[in-house]
Amino acid sequence: MACHLAIAGVTGAVGQEFLSILEERNFPFTTLKMLASSRSKGKKITFKGKEYTVEELTKDSFAGIDIALFSAGGGRSKEFAPAAAKAGAVVVDNSSAFRMDPGVPLVVPEINAEAIKAHKGIIANPNCSTIIGIVPVWPLHQVNPVKRMVVSTYQAASGAGAAAMAELEAQSREILDGRKPTCNAFPYQIAFNCFSHNSALGPDGYNEEETKMVKETRKIFNCPDIAITATCVRIPVMRAHCESINLEFADPMTPEKVRELLAAAPGVTVMDDREHNRFPMPIDASGMDDVLVGRIRQDESLPDNRGINIWVAGDQLRKGAALNAVQIAERLLEL
Amino acid sequence: MACHLAIAGVTGAVGQEFLSILEERNFPFTTLKMLASSRSKGKKITFKGKEYTVEELTKDSFAGIDIALFSAGGGRSKEFAPAAAKAGAVVVDNSSAFRMDPGVPLVVPEINAEAIKAHKGIIANPNCSTIIGIVPVWPLHQVNPVKRMVVSTYQAASGAGAAAMAELEAQSREILDGRKPTCNAFPYQIAFNCFSHNSALGPDGYNEEETKMVKETRKIFNCPDIAITATCVRIPVMRAHCESINLEFADPMTPEKVRELLAAAPGVTVMDDREHNRFPMPIDASGMDDVLVGRIRQDESLPDNRGINIWVAGDQLRKGAALNAVQIAERLLEL
Repeated sequence: MACHLAIAGVTGAVGQEFLSILEERNFPFTTLKMLASSRSKGKKITFKGKEYTVEELTKDSFAGIDIALFSAGGGRSKEFAPAAAKAGAVVVDNSSAFRMDPGVPLVVPEINAEAIKAHKGIIANPNCSTIIGIVPVWPLHQVNPVKRMVVSTYQAASGAGAAAMAELEAQSREILDGRKPTCNAFPYQIAFNCFSHNSALGPDGYNEEETKMVKETRKIFNCPDIAITATCVRIPVMRAHCESINLEFADPMTPEKVRELLAAAPGVTVMDDREHNRFPMPIDASGMDDVLVGRIRQDESLPDNRGINIWVAGDQLRKGAALNAVQIAERLLEL
Repeated sequence: MACHLAIAGVTGAVGQEFLSILEERNFPFTTLKMLASSRSKGKKITFKGKEYTVEELTKDSFAGIDIALFSAGGGRSKEFAPAAAKAGAVVVDNSSAFRMDPGVPLVVPEINAEAIKAHKGIIANPNCSTIIGIVPVWPLHQVNPVKRMVVSTYQAASGAGAAAMAELEAQSREILDGRKPTCNAFPYQIAFNCFSHNSALGPDGYNEEETKMVKETRKIFNCPDIAITATCVRIPVMRAHCESINLEFADPMTPEKVRELLAAAPGVTVMDDREHNRFPMPIDASGMDDVLVGRIRQDESLPDNRGINIWVAGDQLRKGAALNAVQIAERLLEL
């Protein structure tokens, strides 16, 4: 079960994470093509002891390719993913370009792996904050339907790419040295600050990150009427997102039941140590595959024990992006 | 209208902020006594061009004092505030020691200034995250009762004192230099990280910061049945707290109405620039008196337009602590 694999956007933060994860999981491939924009053409990347030369991503890049992992931005996905699919590859696309396309499966393998089968050459990887939030909500929703979710996010710089992570570091140094922070990757100071997510705002005042969470969750859960509201915020953290999630269930739910269900759920690690006030933190989640869940409490502000609060942390570059895409690719190999 | 004033805990982060605010507001005093623990006894502090010597806080410190601003920790408030009251001073106490005492008014002047009159020598200043969250909720609640609040906080290091602010800076340097961060003031790494608030957890799994928000809001609003649930989190920010607040109203509410009410509300500045994606940030709120409010949106996850999301930012040391206490003291002078 091996394949001819391509990675589009290999030099980016998620592209580099693709390589780590493919190596760690010993993903079986016969050939590997590394693709990026013309800027990175000719760069050498050593992977599993072999040196690869980065080629320019073009519409002709995909002859003979079985699976193409894309993380090169929405514009490039729109331009090149259909060509890759036409050439016979299955694209697993990390951008938002095709997520809400009714003909494109939007997949979190722990939730809706079976949707993969319906693909027509493109499978979409959901947005990072959506994936990290819903992996632990799904096993609860299966047992006791979630009627409403109120989500507030604490999102890392990595979601805006490698340049944003470098900017957080550079700004921190500038501020510690008493200098004015330089803003390029982000519109506002990220070091020692936080701000409402820097994606475009719709006419309803919600930014795209928030709207994605609502729409993508409904599609992945195949539950168009689940009520969701989100407030998405960037905080000065490198590469793991946290989320404060308030859940309203159809029927009574206890923290004990939530803990029991999550302890048995795939892709989830419960870290809920009340005795030591030890709950998931970004530095715990960084480099981890699982979404960490803690602060599991009854929300007494809802009647009949129908409310539960949880706090989650997940690696934005791994489960939030590259890992989820590689897990989809692994499922593709099993078809 | 002048008074004999004392400050207990003058060398701490809030104590220093008391001095800035008293000077800025030209608070009228005849004499000023600077008090702190024995460790700081003899320290010199220059205030409004005059040098003061810090005296040790004892039960005998308050003869002839009219108003005593306390921010010396809950233990010292419990020990010394009753003695100050007995000596004839009115204590405005920034600690949690007396907040839930039914005989002690708990006051945010914009909300329940009239409660000051019932004092018996001690008036409590609410917790920082409570004050910052409820200043903008109150004017809405007056017009259309808030049935339920779901709050997630983004809290600054300053809430844990000057040592915690220094620790955020020191840890940031350590991490940027590739060293292991040193944790003293906080139990966990705060730089480039976030964690569930480091206050003690109750048997229900809520930390004290969260429980304070529920109980204090009910007391200040004089509304024992308002439903509130909170998740309180520390983020690597110096001195301003942010809060993501989801509000469920009794009757339909529009973002336009919220904006109109808040534009006219005392202690609130609306910063809700959707066009430029420009909303309140900690660096905006730092040094400001008002609580900044933005991200005012209809929450479509609630029926009948009864849901509203807002995002607030307020200076933890000012409105969250010292400013609110000085505002209470100003009202005392008017009695």
